[in-house]
Amino acid sequence: MSVATTDFREIPAVWTRRHLLDLESLSAEELTCILDAAEDFRAATDNCRHKIQVLTGRTVANLFFENSTRTRNSFSLAARRLGADTIEFSSSGSSVSKGETVIDTAKTIEAMNIDAVVIRHRTPGTPLLLAKNLQCTVISGGDGPHEHPTQGLLDILTIRQRRGSLEGLTVALVGDIAHSRTARSNIWGLKKLGAHVIVCGPATLVSRHWEEFGVEVAYNLDEILPRCDVLNLLRIQFERQHTRPFPSVREYALLYAMNRERIERAKDDILIMAPGPINRGVEITPDVADGPHSVILEQVTNGLAIRMAVLWLTLGAGRS
Amino acid sequence: MSVATTDFREIPAVWTRRHLLDLESLSAEELTCILDAAEDFRAATDNCRHKIQVLTGRTVANLFFENSTRTRNSFSLAARRLGADTIEFSSSGSSVSKGETVIDTAKTIEAMNIDAVVIRHRTPGTPLLLAKNLQCTVISGGDGPHEHPTQGLLDILTIRQRRGSLEGLTVALVGDIAHSRTARSNIWGLKKLGAHVIVCGPATLVSRHWEEFGVEVAYNLDEILPRCDVLNLLRIQFERQHTRPFPSVREYALLYAMNRERIERAKDDILIMAPGPINRGVEITPDVADGPHSVILEQVTNGLAIRMAVLWLTLGAGRS
Amino acid sequence: MSVATTDFREIPAVWTRRHLLDLESLSAEELTCILDAAEDFRAATDNCRHKIQVLTGRTVANLFFENSTRTRNSFSLAARRLGADTIEFSSSGSSVSKGETVIDTAKTIEAMNIDAVVIRHRTPGTPLLLAKNLQCTVISGGDGPHEHPTQGLLDILTIRQRRGSLEGLTVALVGDIAHSRTARSNIWGLKKLGAHVIVCGPATLVSRHWEEFGVEVAYNLDEILPRCDVLNLLRIQFERQHTRPFPSVREYALLYAMNRERIERAKDDILIMAPGPINRGVEITPDVADGPHSVILEQVTNGLAIRMAVLWLTLGAGRS
Repeated sequence: MSVATTDFREIPAVWTRRHLLDLESLSAEELTCILDAAEDFRAATDNCRHKIQVLTGRTVANLFFENSTRTRNSFSLAARRLGADTIEFSSSGSSVSKGETVIDTAKTIEAMNIDAVVIRHRTPGTPLLLAKNLQCTVISGGDGPHEHPTQGLLDILTIRQRRGSLEGLTVALVGDIAHSRTARSNIWGLKKLGAHVIVCGPATLVSRHWEEFGVEVAYNLDEILPRCDVLNLLRIQFERQHTRPFPSVREYALLYAMNRERIERAKDDILIMAPGPINRGVEITPDVADGPHSVILEQVTNGLAIRMAVLWLTLGAGRS
Repeated sequence: MSVATTDFREIPAVWTRRHLLDLESLSAEELTCILDAAEDFRAATDNCRHKIQVLTGRTVANLFFENSTRTRNSFSLAARRLGADTIEFSSSGSSVSKGETVIDTAKTIEAMNIDAVVIRHRTPGTPLLLAKNLQCTVISGGDGPHEHPTQGLLDILTIRQRRGSLEGLTVALVGDIAHSRTARSNIWGLKKLGAHVIVCGPATLVSRHWEEFGVEVAYNLDEILPRCDVLNLLRIQFERQHTRPFPSVREYALLYAMNRERIERAKDDILIMAPGPINRGVEITPDVADGPHSVILEQVTNGLAIRMAVLWLTLGAGRS
Repeated sequence: MSVATTDFREIPAVWTRRHLLDLESLSAEELTCILDAAEDFRAATDNCRHKIQVLTGRTVANLFFENSTRTRNSFSLAARRLGADTIEFSSSGSSVSKGETVIDTAKTIEAMNIDAVVIRHRTPGTPLLLAKNLQCTVISGGDGPHEHPTQGLLDILTIRQRRGSLEGLTVALVGDIAHSRTARSNIWGLKKLGAHVIVCGPATLVSRHWEEFGVEVAYNLDEILPRCDVLNLLRIQFERQHTRPFPSVREYALLYAMNRERIERAKDDILIMAPGPINRGVEITPDVADGPHSVILEQVTNGLAIRMAVLWLTLGAGRS
């Protein structure tokens, strides 16, 4: 799949950004550049055990104001496998509880000779705010319901590895579109790379407004199911909802859960994705989660490769 | 003490296991293999400051669902001193609070190209469950009241270093046998290596059922004291007890605490051990804890060596 | 600024201490030795990206019993940039909650072949207590209201970099002197290096007793302002105060906050410092915090260099 045959010494000419804040502002060429680099990193790390020392002497700070284990650790492992040092900041036990602003916190971290800050914050736009105020590289690890660019990239990489290209594929994002930054990053990335995107879920969680962006809006999973090449089952974010958007979890599962019966009515080679952590029995039944169509664990492995690629590209662009 | 003269390049032929889940299923030869490797690692690290790069490029994940500082950090330091990278997962702030199963959590970690998972969980059998579901190495860091194999090994190594052999020694485990995974791992390991084991404590905490396994059961410490070569004073696990197993801490201390007066009635060369953290004034008085018979801090140092040995052996076996 | 032209191989002869517990007991020569080494480390790390491997194979443990992000991470980064390994202990989730004494906790950490312990504790004297009981190096990361020696050193280094020397400068510490370990470390260090020190704040937070130590005591900032070369604006430690030492935050800001109007009445080249995290609008207004007189972020960068210097000197002294 990879078109580049880089030895990770030179950043491809198409890449000039010091930050990764979203996928909306990236071109198809830039998206492909990240995907190609990630493929190369997977190839380089799957087969052998040596570290790729392209970020030796660099330090990456994880600045997570929301709970996260997998994204935080994925960034941390990615940085260290490139030879960088890592440092963890979190909101609990930090100066934030002493009334410090997020910009002051980030500037203080940067002043410790930090080269890149990975930021997760519940307020949309926080990564952009930091990018405007810091000299170092800023990478979004998710900002409220806005975007989660590396999650979008790893989802897209997983599809591309299985299908060769995104061009002409029909990808449905199922579930809580309204609160999902993963949905937004998928939509922008998938559209740019030529996929047809459907958002599907209860009307309380799926807005008609997406049609303005060339996205198909559907409320009945069973109607669109036979056309789909990929289903990305978004987690019902119980912790983000103030009002109850559907009568019961059981009713949601009845209408939108991926189960054996629905798999039988889908395309033979349909891919089932989920950003995780998955709620078994809610958006996906155990037999499907562990079945042959599921690429959930490949997504995790690709997450590492995507983050290696993003760190390498943004820090490389910052250097030159 | 060490019989092996390994340069840490080749795993001894007797060792073929990819996991360490308990001591009950290990043979005397396998136990001795770990103890010998640990001696070698102590000798190699006590004298010089270079890292032993036998696990370069490997990553060890600590997956602790129960609070732990010393066991977690001991595993982490052991891994890094062998050149491995480490990553920390804990239950607080992780996806577990979002409803993920322990197998899904562990599989997700494994998908980040992790080579070994050290698991601590309050449910007995969780390490075995993971070993059956993961491809990578699984090492128990303690599962409920079942076993804590590396603690058992470090206790046994400490005795062997002082006495040359376990054969024929009388070792008493004193205190809360019912709730102690440390007791179980000690019992299986000590018996296999030829020691006579006594479990001693209040009847509410010490079951007669241990006699079926060739373990002596005693309720009066003063009666068995003159015969003991080693006393291992288990911590009273106040946090694990729902009912109060003895009238008062003071009464427990009166009957079972190791103090100066009891030391005088014990063998001249008796070894006093405690897995820690110790409750000074409960199971041990300060003068004994800091006295010449105490090997409590040697146990901690040996813990590091045991964990280096276990990581080296299990990851080495997994590779070939 | 730096007088030493060390290649970090040999510890200067003037330095013989294995611990750093306070600044009160250090001579002017010892203080200058640390400042010089820190300058050298800044010069060595600002220009290039290689690690200075003077502590390879050493392990530094952070043992923080009080919340801290920046001091803890600053020590951790400093240690790792010298090639050392680091390990984190904190009070939450540790054996401390199981009733262990601080000496036992520290001795247990030391027994894992740790070379230096950085200790923060709310009880004054805890670093000294550990230094008396451990074999390894002990460095204070702040003990209650007593001292915070590396904070004092980084403040002094920042002034020296801008002014060349401390001799004859007038430095005012403004705010909560009573609860501030930063104030105490600044006072001892500044006096020894020839600066004139003023402590200034509400009478409830500033004791006349400082006059006995040759420190000027002032209650009116506007009266002393024209004479000051440096203002160090201590944070109002709301979390440390049981009684309310002034009527309102607004009144405090009116009398003691550094704002544009006061800057205009100050010396042209006045330096504005703050140990952070800063309360914008309380002790400092945003325009001053971000203005040309502020050296707040330089303090953070110097903190890293000071901690590298302290680790190198104390561990080097411990070795020979």
